[in-house]
Amino acid sequence: MEVAVYRRKVNYYETDQMGVVHHSNYIRYFEEARIDLMEKVGLPYADMEENGLIIPVLSVECHYGKPVLFGKDFEVHSRLVKFDGLKMEFVYEIWSEGQLCTTGNSKHCFLDKDMKPVRMKRVYPEIFQKMKELVEG
Amino acid sequence: MEVAVYRRKVNYYETDQMGVVHHSNYIRYFEEARIDLMEKVGLPYADMEENGLIIPVLSVECHYGKPVLFGKDFEVHSRLVKFDGLKMEFVYEIWSEGQLCTTGNSKHCFLDKDMKPVRMKRVYPEIFQKMKELVEG
Amino acid sequence: MEVAVYRRKVNYYETDQMGVVHHSNYIRYFEEARIDLMEKVGLPYADMEENGLIIPVLSVECHYGKPVLFGKDFEVHSRLVKFDGLKMEFVYEIWSEGQLCTTGNSKHCFLDKDMKPVRMKRVYPEIFQKMKELVEG
Amino acid sequence: MEVAVYRRKVNYYETDQMGVVHHSNYIRYFEEARIDLMEKVGLPYADMEENGLIIPVLSVECHYGKPVLFGKDFEVHSRLVKFDGLKMEFVYEIWSEGQLCTTGNSKHCFLDKDMKPVRMKRVYPEIFQKMKELVEG
Repeated sequence: MEVAVYRRKVNYYETDQMGVVHHSNYIRYFEEARIDLMEKVGLPYADMEENGLIIPVLSVECHYGKPVLFGKDFEVHSRLVKFDGLKMEFVYEIWSEGQLCTTGNSKHCFLDKDMKPVRMKRVYPEIFQKMKELVEG
Repeated sequence: MEVAVYRRKVNYYETDQMGVVHHSNYIRYFEEARIDLMEKVGLPYADMEENGLIIPVLSVECHYGKPVLFGKDFEVHSRLVKFDGLKMEFVYEIWSEGQLCTTGNSKHCFLDKDMKPVRMKRVYPEIFQKMKELVEG
Repeated sequence: MEVAVYRRKVNYYETDQMGVVHHSNYIRYFEEARIDLMEKVGLPYADMEENGLIIPVLSVECHYGKPVLFGKDFEVHSRLVKFDGLKMEFVYEIWSEGQLCTTGNSKHCFLDKDMKPVRMKRVYPEIFQKMKELVEG
Repeated sequence: MEVAVYRRKVNYYETDQMGVVHHSNYIRYFEEARIDLMEKVGLPYADMEENGLIIPVLSVECHYGKPVLFGKDFEVHSRLVKFDGLKMEFVYEIWSEGQLCTTGNSKHCFLDKDMKPVRMKRVYPEIFQKMKELVEG
């Protein structure tokens, strides 16, 4: 798929006393970018959750190269790289000041409100179709 | 009431690049201490919420004197100072290294799952009684 | 002064299990809006800190009316209401879905790198002037 | 090495509207446990940082099995599994209610205040020795 680009500035409260963004916050940046990507393709997460579809995180991985600094703009480049109707995987790159700072990925599944796995193809055929196109496009 | 004392260490991720605990985190320390106080008097918040009683924050106020530092132990001294069956107020002091660092207060009401106000005396007479004793004792 | 308007969406990680933005996060929204206001008037906080000027929070107050929800847009309206060269005060309103949700204020002082008070008029006359105009304008 | 056990309760502000601990917070739990482990073996991180030794995170990985819930106690079991004087790796398990909930690892290097790599054996022989024993013991 095309890379989705999500942009914002670093907040002061996201730094730690090392003078850089605390490493746990990049996991939150990934989430922001993922939800933004989903919304851009017509799948707003708030609506999906309201309709009883929950998308928890199965795993997350993050590699820290260069720190991102307070007051600087950064971009999260994210892509859906796998989707089989039961699970999916996103990859992320965080860029700031023209440099690749952080890379990572996250894996997810689809659950209903009772925390049971959902077969997307059968239960949400339209979302299934959009995501198929997203991963292949 | 007697002062309830809640103790722990500052976490690294709670600092910011000023080299001290970020000011928003003291609001979280107040919450930790408040929930700890409630549990100590036999009112565990997780159980109350599970039974459909929600206790949102109406207001919070925090005065910052001396910063609390990473790796240091601190204590939150908290007291329930008002309770009338509809609303309540807690006051807090945060102490570290023998010094009073932060003071504050929070006000709360009682709601049911539909976010309607709950008359504690009628709906939860046992909790009402315990809290009455807490504020007067 | 004119009200400065800061806009963004609520992030998923800012909610709690009450299904709304956790009350501590509004304090962080105030900070985001304050730093944005400062930048808009030509006083980027990152630069000020780099030049040895630190602006800690003396106190913060927040009143919670209606909750702000995940996925919704919100605006923080902020104004500098007091500035005497030693201290300053901002007031904030958070609006979402056409409703005033939260109000609050924060007070600040000016310190140098040794945590000594700074007389803005003498040490930073240009910043002093800009802030004077901001509070009076 | 022996497994170090770090215990505490889940805080309310660590949950999200899925009703469980937000996935980014486990990364913070790993940090708490790692700093606790270091302190237990006589290497308090605050002191190390004060002496100019910084230990940034190179990568982190987290696998989410069962959610950890508000109000519940949990334990982080952590172990130093690699240390060669330039880099180190910790592995973590989070247990709650008798179940293994989360596993993960983090990799770290050693930097001086100018963000240059530090050869632990030469510059901090005592810390080097302690960590060697820790990983082998």
